[in-house]
Amino acid sequence: MEDGRMPSADIARRAGNVSERAVRYRLGRLLAEGLIRVVAIPNPKSLGYNVIADVFLQVDAGSILEVARKLTEYECVSYVGCSMGETDISTQVVAHDNAEVYSFVTDVVANIPGVRKTSTVIVPLVLKDVYQWRIPTSGRVEKTAREG
Amino acid sequence: MEDGRMPSADIARRAGNVSERAVRYRLGRLLAEGLIRVVAIPNPKSLGYNVIADVFLQVDAGSILEVARKLTEYECVSYVGCSMGETDISTQVVAHDNAEVYSFVTDVVANIPGVRKTSTVIVPLVLKDVYQWRIPTSGRVEKTAREG
Amino acid sequence: MEDGRMPSADIARRAGNVSERAVRYRLGRLLAEGLIRVVAIPNPKSLGYNVIADVFLQVDAGSILEVARKLTEYECVSYVGCSMGETDISTQVVAHDNAEVYSFVTDVVANIPGVRKTSTVIVPLVLKDVYQWRIPTSGRVEKTAREG
Amino acid sequence: MEDGRMPSADIARRAGNVSERAVRYRLGRLLAEGLIRVVAIPNPKSLGYNVIADVFLQVDAGSILEVARKLTEYECVSYVGCSMGETDISTQVVAHDNAEVYSFVTDVVANIPGVRKTSTVIVPLVLKDVYQWRIPTSGRVEKTAREG
Amino acid sequence: MEDGRMPSADIARRAGNVSERAVRYRLGRLLAEGLIRVVAIPNPKSLGYNVIADVFLQVDAGSILEVARKLTEYECVSYVGCSMGETDISTQVVAHDNAEVYSFVTDVVANIPGVRKTSTVIVPLVLKDVYQWRIPTSGRVEKTAREG
Amino acid sequence: MEDGRMPSADIARRAGNVSERAVRYRLGRLLAEGLIRVVAIPNPKSLGYNVIADVFLQVDAGSILEVARKLTEYECVSYVGCSMGETDISTQVVAHDNAEVYSFVTDVVANIPGVRKTSTVIVPLVLKDVYQWRIPTSGRVEKTAREG
Amino acid sequence: MEDGRMPSADIARRAGNVSERAVRYRLGRLLAEGLIRVVAIPNPKSLGYNVIADVFLQVDAGSILEVARKLTEYECVSYVGCSMGETDISTQVVAHDNAEVYSFVTDVVANIPGVRKTSTVIVPLVLKDVYQWRIPTSGRVEKTAREG
Amino acid sequence: MEDGRMPSADIARRAGNVSERAVRYRLGRLLAEGLIRVVAIPNPKSLGYNVIADVFLQVDAGSILEVARKLTEYECVSYVGCSMGETDISTQVVAHDNAEVYSFVTDVVANIPGVRKTSTVIVPLVLKDVYQWRIPTSGRVEKTAREG
Repeated sequence: MEDGRMPSADIARRAGNVSERAVRYRLGRLLAEGLIRVVAIPNPKSLGYNVIADVFLQVDAGSILEVARKLTEYECVSYVGCSMGETDISTQVVAHDNAEVYSFVTDVVANIPGVRKTSTVIVPLVLKDVYQWRIPTSGRVEKTAREG
Repeated sequence: MEDGRMPSADIARRAGNVSERAVRYRLGRLLAEGLIRVVAIPNPKSLGYNVIADVFLQVDAGSILEVARKLTEYECVSYVGCSMGETDISTQVVAHDNAEVYSFVTDVVANIPGVRKTSTVIVPLVLKDVYQWRIPTSGRVEKTAREG
Repeated sequence: MEDGRMPSADIARRAGNVSERAVRYRLGRLLAEGLIRVVAIPNPKSLGYNVIADVFLQVDAGSILEVARKLTEYECVSYVGCSMGETDISTQVVAHDNAEVYSFVTDVVANIPGVRKTSTVIVPLVLKDVYQWRIPTSGRVEKTAREG
Repeated sequence: MEDGRMPSADIARRAGNVSERAVRYRLGRLLAEGLIRVVAIPNPKSLGYNVIADVFLQVDAGSILEVARKLTEYECVSYVGCSMGETDISTQVVAHDNAEVYSFVTDVVANIPGVRKTSTVIVPLVLKDVYQWRIPTSGRVEKTAREG
Repeated sequence: MEDGRMPSADIARRAGNVSERAVRYRLGRLLAEGLIRVVAIPNPKSLGYNVIADVFLQVDAGSILEVARKLTEYECVSYVGCSMGETDISTQVVAHDNAEVYSFVTDVVANIPGVRKTSTVIVPLVLKDVYQWRIPTSGRVEKTAREG
Repeated sequence: MEDGRMPSADIARRAGNVSERAVRYRLGRLLAEGLIRVVAIPNPKSLGYNVIADVFLQVDAGSILEVARKLTEYECVSYVGCSMGETDISTQVVAHDNAEVYSFVTDVVANIPGVRKTSTVIVPLVLKDVYQWRIPTSGRVEKTAREG
Repeated sequence: MEDGRMPSADIARRAGNVSERAVRYRLGRLLAEGLIRVVAIPNPKSLGYNVIADVFLQVDAGSILEVARKLTEYECVSYVGCSMGETDISTQVVAHDNAEVYSFVTDVVANIPGVRKTSTVIVPLVLKDVYQWRIPTSGRVEKTAREG
Repeated sequence: MEDGRMPSADIARRAGNVSERAVRYRLGRLLAEGLIRVVAIPNPKSLGYNVIADVFLQVDAGSILEVARKLTEYECVSYVGCSMGETDISTQVVAHDNAEVYSFVTDVVANIPGVRKTSTVIVPLVLKDVYQWRIPTSGRVEKTAREG
């Protein structure tokens, strides 16, 4: 699954005693049922986007969804989630340098109507990213965790 | 780029006056240079993973990297980042229900040596995910933001 | 006291050398004096309400009581208390799933006039509930605690 | 449902065109299926317990469940819940006066092994209590809320 | 100094080889120079004021002094200080019970124009009060502390 | 009551149609019953103690009372209270300058066994001090507040 | 570099086998290229400015730069930085005493349009100041740190 | 004062009717009395130090001074101050990039004995730096502020 464009023949070869047709069939079914999708992930670092930052927002009551939707439109925003705790919206931003992050948060995000407070934290290290998550092999999450 | 397995011929047709060979060549070069990679992303919701949670950790000095690496090994952990603010490590966890999240955080994460304090926040809504980020079309991030 | 509908005769039998009449009399007096009341408690879990959440509110000066009263009217709200610390009102909410909690807090609570800020925390485990409290057998609370 | 000991005949009369037998049957089924239970709730105020306090605990990793169970044993503790945010365990305590609360928290709770930090907040007003929660008449919680 | 109305003759006797006149003279000079003053301190507890509470206020910029002055006028307020940290004004309040504190903070303090947020904390124990402070016998404070 | 050493004759004269004997009698009774006490209050400012600071302490469970008692012994400490919120002990300190406060907190308070964390806040202005509190003329505190 | 007005001849003598001309040439080049600049630093303490305070500001979205620029104009402000975390602007202030700091923050800073909240912290000790920073002798910062 | 190496003759010329000798004399006296000092300030940006970060430390009681002194020795540390609030030590760090800041804080600072917790905040903009502070022309700080 690591390489989304690997031809079915190669997958079959690697997996051992499975025919290319079986691989193609199974992949097709997973895609058809919407259980997986195959996407091209750009590598921010290799494109000169050296800085990743988490931006946490506190937003006026009733504006949360609207602000969250607005944020998804910005090209430098790679993640937008609504959460239940102190923070209303969590965002991840990629940029060439700190000044770019700061200017985006101060000039753009802080001026979206309904945004009350922003807090920016630099993320110098991402060890596992969302697109690296694989379907757990065991039924229950906590069990696999205990085995880990 | 949305569909990582779309044959080059289809991409060429969609893009208009570009030959299939040009598309295949350009895609190959992007992959070869490590600027993009094509991966299969499982869809947690359709697999019964209904709950997404952010788990924030405060970790003992000197254990941060070790704890972060350990966390990447758990199948229910989909994101591990080290950050600079109050929180040392940010994690995202997928689970079937709240009890599973709670038991993972309480029984597993809290017992990793070096973990001092955990704080779990449910994320009821993800509007944009990291794998949806596209290479910005404009040079500087803040500019595109202003145009947004 | 565990079973509010147990016939007085059964209570008498269990308590040993007490007549049914004595039990009925004592119960009657406790009820008459308002020292206890017998109520039917629905079991949220068995009714499909799988999620319990604590919602903490910060409310504008002068709106606290009004907001608190409004909150008692919602069917999903099982507890409303006014407190003295950082939080003005504490609420407990029952729901079928996290999305229901989130939509109630975001769409309803946050829009009650006077509500400034809400913070929601999932309660995966309730080990003792208010209706399980019994009249302490000892005079002073801290003494029984020391013996505990 | 307000009065758990009201004879089935009275319930039938109040509900109008329902036979006493129907009421007794339905109540019996609800009790048998564990959907409701009938309990006697002591009234703390009328028993001289004038002070209600919320005590929030931060507990060492791995001791949470043990501490929570220990807390349920104290007679002055009327609620024990484990939560996911900054606080690990939330408790409600009833007492005759502030000194009793303080001495219970300082001398007893703070000395339970694994308890790291306690924070006590007086609750001068409870407007709705857990045992007052009724089975919502509408299917979905948020809908009833919007109608509220 | 403990007893402000002790006749000078008694002070002289206690202090040993000092004449009553010397005591009267020295006391007179301290009073005249404003270095000490003799005041009658009511004992809140013996007067039925059983509850002492610290109320911390965050106040709008520019209203701090005005709010602080207003607070000094209330009979239940025994201390008003302006401080430099997160809190703008710290107050101490005496009351007959918690309900009285709560109603004073919620109905009165929170409605003073400029008050943004209040946080009330019960003080179950005062071990040393401002009027018990005595003129340090040593020159520098920290030195006496080290000897303590 | 402002001047604790004012001869009874003067008090009588000021109060108008009250005999000196009546004044002396009433004062004697208040003192005898412990309702008031007359003390000499030194004036820190006029004695060169220019800085007043609030020091808030977080203390290990079980050490609170011991630490609080130890603090009362220091000559520069004018107030020691135990409170119920985030802070375990609140102290007020008088000193000649900031360096003296800092050295007392850092070298002395922080080294008392059981003290986990201290936070110092300068109090540039005290508008009403505990010894200025007078017996409220009205019965209930909140009433006088509403009239204020 | 410690003494910015030391004649080039003295620098040459101290450095050993370097001609005065070489020193003058190198210094001239550093200055010309803007790599260093030579400035006169007043000593606040010796001028009677006994108190140094950090003032942290939370500022309305869109006013940050304007507020920061305004702050640089005040003679008592020695540092103004914009930061990414909870605080929007960090300032350092010098003053003769605490009252001067407090009056500057309360009367001046808090009234600059856009300032929402200020928090002042006394800095009793500065062990290294920005003008004492020297060009690191090693290439990478963390390496020198490990050697330190 | 802007240019610490400007020959006295130039200063005299600029200041107008002042002889070079007078300038040299006055400068000499200021230096001799320690009221000013002339230092060479390296320009971090022009030297490739693109990132400035504030690092806030919480330190064990009794280790503050020791930790602060240790921090002054690191070449990448440009400021070390001890403060009175929540934070024990404030530091400013210069680095080539975020990774360098992070590795310095995580590998070096966090491992200094006595350091309990660090929090790093990027400072994208410094509008006024300590070495730009000039001797106020007016006597009292707050007055000049009001005129500003």
